Amino acid sequence: MSNLTEECMDLIGEVRRKAPLIHNITNYVTVNDCANACLAIGASPIMADDITEVEEITAASSALVLNIGTLNQRTKASMIAAGKRANELQIPVILDPVGAGASVLRNQTILEILSQIKIDVLRGNLSEVSFVAGQNASAKGVDAAASDLQYNATEIAKMVAKKFSCTVVVTGKIDTISDGDRFVKIANGHEMLSKVTGTGCMSSALVGCFCGAAVNFYAAAVVGIAAMGIAGEIAYEKAGTDGIGSFHMKLMDAISNFDAACFTERVRMDEY
Amino acid sequence: MSNLTEECMDLIGEVRRKAPLIHNITNYVTVNDCANACLAIGASPIMADDITEVEEITAASSALVLNIGTLNQRTKASMIAAGKRANELQIPVILDPVGAGASVLRNQTILEILSQIKIDVLRGNLSEVSFVAGQNASAKGVDAAASDLQYNATEIAKMVAKKFSCTVVVTGKIDTISDGDRFVKIANGHEMLSKVTGTGCMSSALVGCFCGAAVNFYAAAVVGIAAMGIAGEIAYEKAGTDGIGSFHMKLMDAISNFDAACFTERVRMDEY
Amino acid sequence: MSNLTEECMDLIGEVRRKAPLIHNITNYVTVNDCANACLAIGASPIMADDITEVEEITAASSALVLNIGTLNQRTKASMIAAGKRANELQIPVILDPVGAGASVLRNQTILEILSQIKIDVLRGNLSEVSFVAGQNASAKGVDAAASDLQYNATEIAKMVAKKFSCTVVVTGKIDTISDGDRFVKIANGHEMLSKVTGTGCMSSALVGCFCGAAVNFYAAAVVGIAAMGIAGEIAYEKAGTDGIGSFHMKLMDAISNFDAACFTERVRMDEY
Repeated sequence: MSNLTEECMDLIGEVRRKAPLIHNITNYVTVNDCANACLAIGASPIMADDITEVEEITAASSALVLNIGTLNQRTKASMIAAGKRANELQIPVILDPVGAGASVLRNQTILEILSQIKIDVLRGNLSEVSFVAGQNASAKGVDAAASDLQYNATEIAKMVAKKFSCTVVVTGKIDTISDGDRFVKIANGHEMLSKVTGTGCMSSALVGCFCGAAVNFYAAAVVGIAAMGIAGEIAYEKAGTDGIGSFHMKLMDAISNFDAACFTERVRMDEY
Repeated sequence: MSNLTEECMDLIGEVRRKAPLIHNITNYVTVNDCANACLAIGASPIMADDITEVEEITAASSALVLNIGTLNQRTKASMIAAGKRANELQIPVILDPVGAGASVLRNQTILEILSQIKIDVLRGNLSEVSFVAGQNASAKGVDAAASDLQYNATEIAKMVAKKFSCTVVVTGKIDTISDGDRFVKIANGHEMLSKVTGTGCMSSALVGCFCGAAVNFYAAAVVGIAAMGIAGEIAYEKAGTDGIGSFHMKLMDAISNFDAACFTERVRMDEY
Repeated sequence: MSNLTEECMDLIGEVRRKAPLIHNITNYVTVNDCANACLAIGASPIMADDITEVEEITAASSALVLNIGTLNQRTKASMIAAGKRANELQIPVILDPVGAGASVLRNQTILEILSQIKIDVLRGNLSEVSFVAGQNASAKGVDAAASDLQYNATEIAKMVAKKFSCTVVVTGKIDTISDGDRFVKIANGHEMLSKVTGTGCMSSALVGCFCGAAVNFYAAAVVGIAAMGIAGEIAYEKAGTDGIGSFHMKLMDAISNFDAACFTERVRMDEY
């Protein structure tokens, strides 16, 4: 068993023991699922986005998750204020650049966040991370466009990780995680995950939960992403072809039942 | 088989093939269900409501759905800006006048939208559409009040359709859809649909999805409304009297399993 | 059978007969569950938070529920305006001080609401109600911190109820409800309720529904809290250890199936 695998297993216990408070400034589409995903994995979520309270809430938290899914000018300012406070207090910051490339507002916000705040983990699909890499990806809505698959996720992840000195996650059929030097490929997951809104947002929230209990954010990103992929597989095994309602319910079940034994039995990851 | 039935069947395939991007400016109560309904029927949802990005997002989309369920002054301006852009680009616009008649804000917003934007489909319950018709309907909350049932849905639908040169849907025990000339009555559905919040919003979102894949928005409205009614029937067959949680889950399942065969087997519609 | 038990049983029928309109100004995390809980118990929810319409919406409603879970400066002003209108019209007001103690914004808002608006029922966990009592509780996120359990829920509830001339509910393993003079202890519930986000918010919404059909808000609070606890027990019996997704679904089922027989068979309450 690799050191990384052992670290991941430890983190699964740590997050349930510590129940870290995770401050999410996120979108109103998937926020309920994100809060439930945090609770399911053992953390304690708090959602707060008013500029007059975000610094206080961040200061009391163990991680800050910024998700620009339904960004507006009010919450943009709140994200930057919260991020700066997190940096001052060395609280890990996770950025989910939902819909990067889809509008000037989103693009400028991502660039402002990246220029003013030290991010610890960035998670997006190939289209979103490619935008961050300056690849002029063509974002179609908030899902990874098939036409973007020509890019090499590993190279993009490493490049962005080096550029911003952070861990980068590119989720897709195979998930790629890099800290700029090492990288991991995770082959867990199921295509049904792309049929339920918010599975990307929940992945970022789970990474935030593990970061809130971790010293090593690379391991936290790996176990968070593996947790979601494995939960997706289990959900499909339980729900079968019943439909997305049943799959969604079983997905939340699987996250709440996720433990170290489940991780070691099911994870299919290769370290490079 | 009528031309309309054939068009509906074709659209069910088209929306899954094209996966049109549907821009929703909607309420925060039912937004998660609306996004999942879009995915379940085969479309790709994007929710964005900031005035600085809505025109861009609309321009990249195949349909725009405006839902005033938790309207505020900020999102009102965004709806109007997005609607104007949609009109310029001939992108279909669907309006769901949630709670029409319940407040001056809602009433004025509806009138402003209708005076500044060409709507392609308007969907509401009898109380809401009656308000739009100038019938001084007494809206009680956001549900159709029993006292309004004296109005004739067909006459209201035709009148409003003619007045605004659009397709009008009046949902209820029997759904009525008119383009001002023709009309269709759909007898699908189940009373449990009124026990789950957001089934009206989801109906409008589904109509938006089909409009995003259609040339004929009348057919798109018919198949969107039929899809919801049929899904409600199937959900009740599966969930029985278990309760609204089970019904809600089975409803999402049924939308995701909806196909042309399901439509032709189950639809109970009369064309006039 | 006590008078209070009889009043509770009557209210369960009343809310389904009257279907009172309940105006919720609440958070975007749990709002969908709150709306569905209102429908499930027999009431009709309306969510509206713009300052230009809240007074009108409140005026048409039978109860107003204020929940500060994702408070911002815009909605704070709306809550105060709606609360004042409710007071003028003698419409009951329920306050859920989510995260009291967690930020200056939340604390000041609670104090402003309590100084400007006559509240009929206040519901929170021990940490939140202790803050209102001036106990300097240490709020950790929005959940009751274990360290706060040294406080005596009964004394806190009575003190706050007397101070603000209202009914106070302190939810926890045992729920305590007091009007300043009498108090009730309810032993229903299941620990799984703390693993799903929004069960506290839904409890407040259910109390609002019963207040909307009641003359006696003390009884309304008792039956609302009992309904949630009993629904949690039934949900656990049905979902077992399947996980939080299944529990969540079965919880909504149980609320929708709640009736007077269920209440009398299962309630475990002591009156003092």
